Amino acid sequence: MEILIVGAGNMARGIGLRLVRGGHRVRIAAREPDKAADLAAELGDSAAGEPLDSAAGAPVIVLATPYEGGKEVARLWSDQLAGKTVIDICNPVDFDTFDGLVTPPGKSAAEEIAEAAPDALVVKAFNTTFASRLANTGTLDVFVAGEDADAKKTVVGLCVDAELRPIDVGGLAHARALEAFQLLHMKVQDQIHGGWSTAITFAP
Amino acid sequence: MEILIVGAGNMARGIGLRLVRGGHRVRIAAREPDKAADLAAELGDSAAGEPLDSAAGAPVIVLATPYEGGKEVARLWSDQLAGKTVIDICNPVDFDTFDGLVTPPGKSAAEEIAEAAPDALVVKAFNTTFASRLANTGTLDVFVAGEDADAKKTVVGLCVDAELRPIDVGGLAHARALEAFQLLHMKVQDQIHGGWSTAITFAP
Repeated sequence: MEILIVGAGNMARGIGLRLVRGGHRVRIAAREPDKAADLAAELGDSAAGEPLDSAAGAPVIVLATPYEGGKEVARLWSDQLAGKTVIDICNPVDFDTFDGLVTPPGKSAAEEIAEAAPDALVVKAFNTTFASRLANTGTLDVFVAGEDADAKKTVVGLCVDAELRPIDVGGLAHARALEAFQLLHMKVQDQIHGGWSTAITFAP
Repeated sequence: MEILIVGAGNMARGIGLRLVRGGHRVRIAAREPDKAADLAAELGDSAAGEPLDSAAGAPVIVLATPYEGGKEVARLWSDQLAGKTVIDICNPVDFDTFDGLVTPPGKSAAEEIAEAAPDALVVKAFNTTFASRLANTGTLDVFVAGEDADAKKTVVGLCVDAELRPIDVGGLAHARALEAFQLLHMKVQDQIHGGWSTAITFAP
């Protein structure tokens, strides 16, 4: 499958590495085409970089940008995302306080992105997996929330290919819990000496 | 330390076992005194059963009851809980849908209990740890939220004594995330073949 990743940062890298290892073709699109090209080069022959131009041709788009950037892309690309699987990975953390979220009360970033691109099939996933863990091997729990069953099935399949454990938590409203709990996971990194490499896990 | 556990069900048993092993004295109070006596007998010489009568003499009270019962006890005992550490462990799950919570939007059960007993030092803890895992040995992450630093310190100390890993996630409002994420943990038990013995963990 061909997947367009918007962004060329650490999360784009981690997800890109997993997808390429899973046998998929990856397009990296970024506002700075040089960064997109550099990351694509690192990902190898199954990847190519491009400017942030168009989602045409990709059935799956990963918004691997910060919260505001993802909303902006969803708004700008609203028409061309129609009917496509759009994976929102963001954490709308209030970085001033590191104790709350910047989303409106009772709404997730994922739901806001779905409002910005109302015909896109938005799926929340990968917001609890730190980039370093994605870049390494080893399985991770990936919590998946969304309204469209086929879109979730696509994301679940990509996770399995990437040797991750997808866990379908239900409708997109559950992204609120995923985002709120990941804030806690992030804010206690010092306390648990996590070094930003821990993972939220439903452990046996 | 003397700890009063309200309730004589599986969670009272699991927490009671951990506290007794941690060297503490446990009082089990339940509406059905026979059940309280039975559980106390199982816990051994450091435990005693009693009717659901009074919190007098116990600096720490664990509300090991379902959501509605905990609120009711907090309301009835509002005066005598003043200044005491009250541990709320409940999960206000909507058992009709198993897809949402019965708490009002934007409020946790812990905050409701704090409203019902406004002078109690309410701490959310143990809502993500299944009873079977508490009853066994082995460490578990215990997420702790609350407003009063001393009360949280007390709960953290009890967890350490019980060979658990306490993680202080901040103020009581974060109980919303703990309750919402535990709902997801509960609802996917079939999917992950968890058998109600998994644990939410910040895994290395």
